Formats: sequence, structure tokens, C-alpha cells
Amino acid sequence: RDLDVFLLFDPSLSREALENEGLGLARSIASAFTKKYGEKYAEHPYISALIDDVDVDLVPCYAVESAGRIQSAVDRTPFHTRYITEKINGLIDDVLLLKRFTKSGGIYGSDQMTEGFSGYLCELLVLHYGGFIPLLNAAAEWKPQMVINHENHDAKHFTEPLVMVDPVDPNRNVAAAVSLDQMVAFVELARGYTEEPSVHFFDLPAVMSITREELARLLAERGTSLFAITFSTPPYIEEVIVPQLKRSVSAIVEHLERNGFVVHHAHYVMQPEHCFFLFELLVADLPKIRTHAGPPLWNRLNAEKFREKHIVSHLPGPYIKNGRYEMEVFREFTRARDMLASESLLQVSLGKHVRQSLLNGWQVDEGADCWHAEFEPFIASFFWRGSPLIRVRRKILDL
Amino acid sequence: RDLDVFLLFDPSLSREALENEGLGLARSIASAFTKKYGEKYAEHPYISALIDDVDVDLVPCYAVESAGRIQSAVDRTPFHTRYITEKINGLIDDVLLLKRFTKSGGIYGSDQMTEGFSGYLCELLVLHYGGFIPLLNAAAEWKPQMVINHENHDAKHFTEPLVMVDPVDPNRNVAAAVSLDQMVAFVELARGYTEEPSVHFFDLPAVMSITREELARLLAERGTSLFAITFSTPPYIEEVIVPQLKRSVSAIVEHLERNGFVVHHAHYVMQPEHCFFLFELLVADLPKIRTHAGPPLWNRLNAEKFREKHIVSHLPGPYIKNGRYEMEVFREFTRARDMLASESLLQVSLGKHVRQSLLNGWQVDEGADCWHAEFEPFIASFFWRGSPLIRVRRKILDL
Repeated sequence: RDLDVFLLFDPSLSREALENEGLGLARSIASAFTKKYGEKYAEHPYISALIDDVDVDLVPCYAVESAGRIQSAVDRTPFHTRYITEKINGLIDDVLLLKRFTKSGGIYGSDQMTEGFSGYLCELLVLHYGGFIPLLNAAAEWKPQMVINHENHDAKHFTEPLVMVDPVDPNRNVAAAVSLDQMVAFVELARGYTEEPSVHFFDLPAVMSITREELARLLAERGTSLFAITFSTPPYIEEVIVPQLKRSVSAIVEHLERNGFVVHHAHYVMQPEHCFFLFELLVADLPKIRTHAGPPLWNRLNAEKFREKHIVSHLPGPYIKNGRYEMEVFREFTRARDMLASESLLQVSLGKHVRQSLLNGWQVDEGADCWHAEFEPFIASFFWRGSPLIRVRRKILDL
Repeated sequence: RDLDVFLLFDPSLSREALENEGLGLARSIASAFTKKYGEKYAEHPYISALIDDVDVDLVPCYAVESAGRIQSAVDRTPFHTRYITEKINGLIDDVLLLKRFTKSGGIYGSDQMTEGFSGYLCELLVLHYGGFIPLLNAAAEWKPQMVINHENHDAKHFTEPLVMVDPVDPNRNVAAAVSLDQMVAFVELARGYTEEPSVHFFDLPAVMSITREELARLLAERGTSLFAITFSTPPYIEEVIVPQLKRSVSAIVEHLERNGFVVHHAHYVMQPEHCFFLFELLVADLPKIRTHAGPPLWNRLNAEKFREKHIVSHLPGPYIKNGRYEMEVFREFTRARDMLASESLLQVSLGKHVRQSLLNGWQVDEGADCWHAEFEPFIASFFWRGSPLIRVRRKILDL
């Protein structure tokens, strides 16, 4: 459980004064209740404290007159709170139901790993449709580019799959963080619930586990090849690093497939100490040779250069194929493991901080050696893969 | 060496009468010289005889007044002969040089296997450019869709890579059989010869050989997987069967790759007794699982059918990916060999006569077992693969 406390300061205060006075006040409040507190940093610095088992964030911000005048994202929150508090009467239980429903489905949270539904979005959805059940009935028919504009504001044009125009700031999409697949997952759950309601739609997701031995057995059954890359987590917040992890994994998948290694599934996770990429490959070993396309013969100069360059080769070619020269050459990497361990990894587009961390080295593991206690739930979920509704339906049907 | 003799009959004769009288006459001529003769069939039946080591074809045809009135393709040949005979004076040696040059390059012959230059095309090219060397100088700069219209006829529009409008029939492209790659090979040879002439441009291509042991060693070095399909040659002429073999091999390559087996190189050959497909694969064994794409969730009915169908599966999924359901399923074939030996081969587009022959069964071989004496030169050339010029250049450079 957690609690956010906003400390409102006069907007005429300088940013530096706000940070000094605000943090001072926050620190003195926290110290009155607990010894477990410390400074954290999002867009602003703030104080995070543990008081009686409740995570309390004490956040200094400007008390601006209207949401249009906010100076940073945290200034908007008091407007959201006021807006919801004034209207939510009688719908509190519906909001709690929706939050539990989305948590159960693994789609609660607007952070970069979840790409799902924020608390404020849940509140607005319940408000807009007038309750949990009316919302689910409507959501069952949602399609991407669904736009909800509760106050009928003149809103800007948004391109995200789900759009909820912020009632207190029409230039903001409250659902901006929701990915296409998480939106679809909500639609799927809404359909499932309206067709056959069950208490299982509110079960909290179990932390999944897999032992090293189970992983070894699973890989033997599947016949696939598993590779992991582990490296130190760069010292930045999740919002900065997770998008880089996502981009890095895509780039490495492309690099593998360009080299002939067929990737079945790949994913990433960020833990406090280490980041972890997992790749399941259909093909991890390849013959020494590959074909190498040369220039079309119409490009006479380059064609002649290509021919004379390869004239001493003992491999077949250059031969003519579809009007171009083509050649057999030796493959740079015949084993996916060698490729993942090589410097070539630094050439793909990794994102600045990930690349910096990899410059200090990374570890490549293969098969059951990919198992690390730190990543056990992630590894288990990597092989689980089911839509939220399929998990609920299997519980209902006792499969 | 061979000789074609055309027996010209009155065009008022019925087709049946032509075949009866023509074959009777041809047979009596042949029997006067040799006992080694027999009936063959192209568009018409004709007599083929071996007389003093010369292959003599005795071909009955209609003596039509102009090439525009021909009743079948053989009727056109006397017009070609007459046209060339009247004009070729002084260029006979150039024609012989060109025929030897193209034979040496493996591009002489308009049959379906060669897809190259016919004798008549060689004659017209020498005539048009005024000699062997002027032709090569011009050809060095040819590009696809090159059109040569020696008589400046009003010709129809042709789409083949090389067009030589037939002087005696402007609706016909004499170079229709020339494939893009054989045209390019000629351009390549022309460039090579004009830059550095050598007697090696006239060496006849050696029949290539490879022993079973050499094949085994080669495959071990390459690390690839070789598969052969052998079946009875359908009882039809090469012009009918070879295009079907070509199509069949393409279709089987697609079938292999659709099932995840990566094909490095594939080719076909037709011998009197058997036809032979050869496939060199980078990947011949795959894990049990594969992904199976389902419907988008917007297609609610099909999405629900898909989900409920797979709900009992023990493999991961259905999960949501890019707005669609996706699922892991078991792969139909984990070994390329099993796929090539299965009935599934009959489902790909093979061509009528190839399919009929396969219905009586086919043999699948793997690795060095693909070696058969009947196909030895073909197997050797399968692994050779070099453009005509690269072979000549290596001889010149003594590589």
C-alpha cells in the first residue's frame, strides 16, 4: 500500500527554492514519523518514507491556479485528485473493482514494463461509463484508436491505440502509456467477464517459479536453444532504461536473424542489480558457408571489381543469379553463442546507457545455465505466455 | 555433328497425308544409308538416323510460299536457311567462332535446360553486327530488353530480356528462349573477351566429375545437408518436362522454407531414365515447436473460436501479439528428410506429368547417398557454380 502527499508551494518561488524548502519540509514531516526515509528523484526530487508499513511519498510541487499553467508533471496531480474527488461519489467500489481487475490481468500500471492502465485512467473510465459493469460492456466492443473525451473538450489529435482526453488538460492523453497489446488484453478480459463473470477475474497474479532442473527439462522437451545476456543495470530510472532495453533486444534479434539464426522468442527485464535479455532460438548452429550478393552486371565497374576480388576464392562463385553476381563466402559466426559474445553486439542500436554498461562487459549463458535466482519469475513467465483471459478461462474450466 | 534435312511437300496436302507420305519418304531415304534410324516426335513426327557418325534428322514439312503462311514451326526453318544462305557470305568463320564461343560458355542451345543461343540466333547476330568482334564490342554494353531489328520490320512488342526480331517473321523473337542470366553471361563473356582475348574462350566445357568419397568429404567441409529426390522420367520430350521440373523444384523449395528449412541451393536435371532434384540445406533439423498466428482480436467471433480451440493445449498461448492471437503448436515436420519423403510433396504445384510420375513413388537420399553414377556430372556442377567468364579468367590466370 502506498500514499502520495503533495506539498503545495507558491508558483512565484524559484525552482531551486522549491526544491530546497520543499525537501526540507518533506524531510521534517517524514522524520516526525519514521527513521526509514530518503531522497528520490523523478522529474523533481522528493522524499520517500516507510511509515507503519505504508510507502509514503512526500512530493513538493507548485500550487498553480489551473492545470494549463503547470510547471512540471507533478503539479498536475492535485488537479486530478480534486477532479476525481468531486465526482467519484458512489463509484468508489467500482474503481476498486476495476483496479483489482486490471491488476489481476497484469495490465495495471503505466510504467514502461507494464504499458498498462494508471490509477487515474481507471478512475476516469469508471466515471465516464458510470460504473464497472457499464465500462466492461462498452470496452468489449472497443477497437484501436478508441477516443474518450469525457468533458467534450476541444482536444488535440492523439495517435495512441487508446485515448482518454485528460479532463483537466485536453492536450494530454491519460492513456498514452497503454500499448496496443495491453489495450487489447483489456478488451479481451472485458468480453470474457461480460460473457461469464467469475471471481477468478480478481485473483492476483501468482509469482511464477521455475527451478534450474525444470528449465533444463523444458528445454530438452522443446528442442530449442536458450541464450541469456546479463549486464549491470545502468544507474538511471526505469522510465529511461526500459525503452532502451526494448530497443536493444529488437536490434539483437535483427542481428541474429541477419546472420541466419532464427529467433523464436525474446524478452528483457530490468532488476536493481542486473538487466537480463533472454533469447530462445530455433536455430543456433549453421554451416560455414553462406551466399553473398554482389552487384548487378549492369553496374560494370563494380561487377568487375567484385569478380576479380573473389577470383582467388576456393568457394563456388561468383556466379550469375537474376542478373547479379553472387558468391559463397564463409559465415562470420556459425554459432549464435559466439555472435552474442562478440564485440559485434556493440554495433547494433542499443541505446546510450545500455551501450555504456555493455562496454564494461556482459555475460552470455546457454541452456539451463541461463537460470539465475535473480530472474526466476521472469524466466518462468518467458515460457508461460498466455493472454490474461486464457489464464482466467483455464481456472474457470479447471484445466 | 548433326544434319537436318527438310522434305518439302505441297501445302494443299492434309496433315495426315503429310505425316504418312513424309515419314514414308524419310524412312526409305534413311534405310538406304543405315540400319540405325527411328521415328521421333516434336511438333511433327520425323525420322532420326545415324549415318557415318552424323546424326541426320529427316523432317517432312510444308513448302509454304512465305514465312507468314507457315502451318507449323518446322515449316519456318527452310526460310531461315534461305535467308542466312543468301547473306552470310564472308562471315561463315565468324559464325563458327561465335558458336564455339557460346558452346564454351555453356550458353549455346535454345533447349529448356540451356535457355541459351540457338544456331540461327548466332547467325543473325554475326550478320547484324558484321562479324564476331563487332558483335562482342556491342554486346559488352547490352542491357536487358535489348532489341535488335535487323530488317527494321514493324515488329510486335516482346518482353524477353533479349529480342532479335526474326527477319522472315516479325511476330517471332528468335532470342525468346534466352533467359536473363544466359543473356547476362553472354554480356559478361563479351566484356571479358574484348578486354583480354584468349584461346581459353573457345575451350569446350569439360564434363565434370565427383566421386562418392569426394562428395562425402565436400559435405563434411561445407557443413550443409544434402537431399536428393529421384523419380522416373515421364514419357514426354524435354521441352514439356524441363519447365515442369523447374517449377517443381521452386515449389518444393517454398514448401521447405515455409516449414522452416532454409535452402541454400537447389537444382534439377532430366536424364533418359530418371529425373533428379538436388537440395542443399543450411538447416535440416528443427525443434518440435513453432508459432502459429491466429485471428486479430477485432474479429471477435474467430478470435473466440481460436481461443477456445487451443484452451486445452499444454503449449504456451494463445497470447496477444500486435493485436492478434498467436499460439505455439507442434511442427508437422522436424526433419527435412521426413518432409521430402511425405505425401505433402504431392500437394505442391509440380506440373501434371511430374505429379503423375511421383504418384508411382520417389526415392529420397541424404548426404553422400545422393551420389548416383547417372547424375555424376550434374552433382559435380551443382557444387561448382561459377559464371562462364570466371572459369575462363581462372584458366588465363592459371589459378
